[in-house]
Amino acid sequence: MPTPEQLLENVRRHAHEIDLLSTIGSTLEWDERTYLPKSGGEFRAEQITYLSGLTHQKRTAPQLGEWLGELAESPLAADLHSDPGTVIRMMQRDYEKQTRLPQSLVEELARAQVLGQQAWVESRKTNDFAAFVPFLTKNIDLRRQQAEAFGYEDHIYDALLDDYEPNERTANVARVLSALRAELAPLVAEIAASPQKPDAGLLTRLYPKAGQEAFALHAAKKVGFDFDRGRLDVTHHPFCTDLGPHDCRITTRYDERHFPGAFFGVLHEAGHGMYEQGLRAAWRGLPPGNFVSLGIHESQSRMWENFVGRSRAFWEHFYPVAQGMFLPTLADVSLEEFYFAVNDVRPSLIRVEADEATYNLHIIIRFELEQALLTGDLAPGDAAGAWREKYREYLGIEPPDDADGILQDVHWSAALIGYFPTYALGNLYAAQFYEQADADLGGLASQFAAGEFAPLLTWLNEKIHAPGQCYSASELVQNITGKPLSHEPLIRHLRNKLSPLYGL
Amino acid sequence: MPTPEQLLENVRRHAHEIDLLSTIGSTLEWDERTYLPKSGGEFRAEQITYLSGLTHQKRTAPQLGEWLGELAESPLAADLHSDPGTVIRMMQRDYEKQTRLPQSLVEELARAQVLGQQAWVESRKTNDFAAFVPFLTKNIDLRRQQAEAFGYEDHIYDALLDDYEPNERTANVARVLSALRAELAPLVAEIAASPQKPDAGLLTRLYPKAGQEAFALHAAKKVGFDFDRGRLDVTHHPFCTDLGPHDCRITTRYDERHFPGAFFGVLHEAGHGMYEQGLRAAWRGLPPGNFVSLGIHESQSRMWENFVGRSRAFWEHFYPVAQGMFLPTLADVSLEEFYFAVNDVRPSLIRVEADEATYNLHIIIRFELEQALLTGDLAPGDAAGAWREKYREYLGIEPPDDADGILQDVHWSAALIGYFPTYALGNLYAAQFYEQADADLGGLASQFAAGEFAPLLTWLNEKIHAPGQCYSASELVQNITGKPLSHEPLIRHLRNKLSPLYGL
Repeated sequence: MPTPEQLLENVRRHAHEIDLLSTIGSTLEWDERTYLPKSGGEFRAEQITYLSGLTHQKRTAPQLGEWLGELAESPLAADLHSDPGTVIRMMQRDYEKQTRLPQSLVEELARAQVLGQQAWVESRKTNDFAAFVPFLTKNIDLRRQQAEAFGYEDHIYDALLDDYEPNERTANVARVLSALRAELAPLVAEIAASPQKPDAGLLTRLYPKAGQEAFALHAAKKVGFDFDRGRLDVTHHPFCTDLGPHDCRITTRYDERHFPGAFFGVLHEAGHGMYEQGLRAAWRGLPPGNFVSLGIHESQSRMWENFVGRSRAFWEHFYPVAQGMFLPTLADVSLEEFYFAVNDVRPSLIRVEADEATYNLHIIIRFELEQALLTGDLAPGDAAGAWREKYREYLGIEPPDDADGILQDVHWSAALIGYFPTYALGNLYAAQFYEQADADLGGLASQFAAGEFAPLLTWLNEKIHAPGQCYSASELVQNITGKPLSHEPLIRHLRNKLSPLYGL
Repeated sequence: MPTPEQLLENVRRHAHEIDLLSTIGSTLEWDERTYLPKSGGEFRAEQITYLSGLTHQKRTAPQLGEWLGELAESPLAADLHSDPGTVIRMMQRDYEKQTRLPQSLVEELARAQVLGQQAWVESRKTNDFAAFVPFLTKNIDLRRQQAEAFGYEDHIYDALLDDYEPNERTANVARVLSALRAELAPLVAEIAASPQKPDAGLLTRLYPKAGQEAFALHAAKKVGFDFDRGRLDVTHHPFCTDLGPHDCRITTRYDERHFPGAFFGVLHEAGHGMYEQGLRAAWRGLPPGNFVSLGIHESQSRMWENFVGRSRAFWEHFYPVAQGMFLPTLADVSLEEFYFAVNDVRPSLIRVEADEATYNLHIIIRFELEQALLTGDLAPGDAAGAWREKYREYLGIEPPDDADGILQDVHWSAALIGYFPTYALGNLYAAQFYEQADADLGGLASQFAAGEFAPLLTWLNEKIHAPGQCYSASELVQNITGKPLSHEPLIRHLRNKLSPLYGL
């Protein structure tokens, strides 16, 4: 009869194999998006599929289930938030979710995701939502089946949200987001009505690619992304991927006529990367060494992108460097003008291009629509109309077509339902954490202005990165800030920043 | 009772899994050498080791052995050189070799290779051959054990050579190489005595990196390397690796003060790459879709590097482009001067920097020494002295120290014994194939001068690449040229090219 410690060691070794396989898979995917020759795609897909099969086998190995079952009865499981307790609790959770899904549904979903994305590419190109409806219908139906297989207490959406934001509930997210919307809508309206506007054209002057790359690398390094343990490459869609304990790769793309895209994109991905780099290597591949949730992950990217990167203090430090790097582009532009330009707030159609304030309204629309789609209150065929209506109501604008309306995001075509709210949760978590860090560290602005970012990063390392999954996202927020998640810190942050700029 | 066709299909599927796993491993290795962050090495090694284990399991699966055993008795095996016959013959060969090796020896070799290479790096740095002797002794001893486990008829060296040059025999290689040396030594002496010398300094003027890269890409593309199915990157040691049927990657490194290194290096690796790209995709992962031997592989790289790339006709086509690309570097240099410079022949210490003629003498020295080491006629502790003696005798020069003498190559430290002769065999095969292609295609020089390289590549595709392993290297030479391997074509090639240059 093995001791609990021996069982835990078995689980650790097993999890290490899963980690090896899944990081190998991520490496193949990274390569596919960065350097794979044009004709190499098909074979690469075979390699990835084969590896996914091996990984899935490992994750659902009956032996693993038995070890976890025995461990769950052992004293090691007693303290839920200890490292061993977290291993047992979270891995058993994952194991049960994985094994509760019928193999036929897994395969049908995989197929539907591929077909859905292909159909989406075509429908978006031809602005033909009707052609996409059968695929959307299929994806929603399959996710509904998945939710039923997993089970849920309150809302069917809970079962899907749980994949991205473990233990979070729809009702709680709805509560916070509706409070957020109630205060955000008037703020956005006040800004729209303000006669003060930034000269956003500053940011579409010529910013040569080489300079953008050098400056982005400089800033990412300065704020604390460790390039001995990561790198920056170019891809069409930017991302951050973890390929091992000391190998985190971020990507961006450069548009010589649009400064903010790559620069804030790199800060964003570096924020994700610094979270990965801050996880405890000793628990690598196990829940105590893994990120909490997509929302918490997004809180780290948004913190560095917006709370740090779009702050006045940040530019007090970096603006002279930017001016030098991009001579003569910025020679006639004051810090104040530049700072206002990177904080331009105005309702827009495309989520990924939205500013810090209106972004959340885009998410709220998707969150509401996907709940209605899942419960059946909204028929997929009516979703494009509902989309336009909500954009009119929440943002005061209407997409001229579905390609830039409901067809703009890949998520639903890939059957990712329950994912969108994690973007808004990320902003909310970021605001609440940032307010606390600012209080704990005695004024971050003056540190940023002096080029000091280590205190904030160390604070994040200790408070958020190191605990891994020992606490859920909502527990983490409560532990760190002493309060449950609220919309108030984000609204305070936006009002404090935007009021002086727009003279509100 | 499955039919032979069903058994063959089982083997094909099994081999496909091996191919997926081994190309995934190669992708990880490629990434390690190109883009892996500094601190990522340790985890990468774990990933690669884990994958090797999975691959080895697949390659030695008893089920595979049973299928192959049954197939060997079936009518499909009757025609040895048919595609199915080749699958059965060569995979059974591989299976038996793999399973004949005791697991303990496999592991000891793996460990010794790592330790040997670490010791070599240090010994080379400190010019301390004595410190390296125990590792060399160990490696030779382990390879001797391996050879005994495999078995051999004539010479213990056969058992090792067979890993790189299947079915080739030491006696045959010795016969050809000694004939080669007998004619090469006087040729090299005549050249050394000639008052005509190229201005080799032309090649160490300034050749900016960006220009070198653009020019090498231009030439590699022009001769036929398909960049939709491959790419070129930078690594410290250049190589070519096959990551899938449509994904062949080559690498180089640029020295702005040394033109030939990168340029001929890229042609060399592109030659390897065009071989990979010319293999039959329908037999991917199986012997009929696999390269014949390292010697044949090297014949392709050396053909494009030397027989094509160092020909006068090649430069008639490319030299104006080079002049334009490297203005003003080559403005005052005639085609004739440049052509002579890239064909500079003079005895030198370092194999990888040796010219087309003297290169083979470096190999002959290693081939003779490693046979003597393996039989015990030469004690490892005496090898550095024997090395110096042979360099004096064969090349007329003596290394000032062991770092640039016996310690210059990684091979023996990595227990690669029997590998060196494949380099010289590659030159010999290349010469014999090239002479035949020239006759078959009616004068290649005029085609090169007109920038036409497709006829030669098509000839190579048909004659050498497409057959895969259906014939051994020596059968292939006999089939294509109607004669067994001989030193004469290489000597003819060198005399024809070098006589006018050096006024011999």
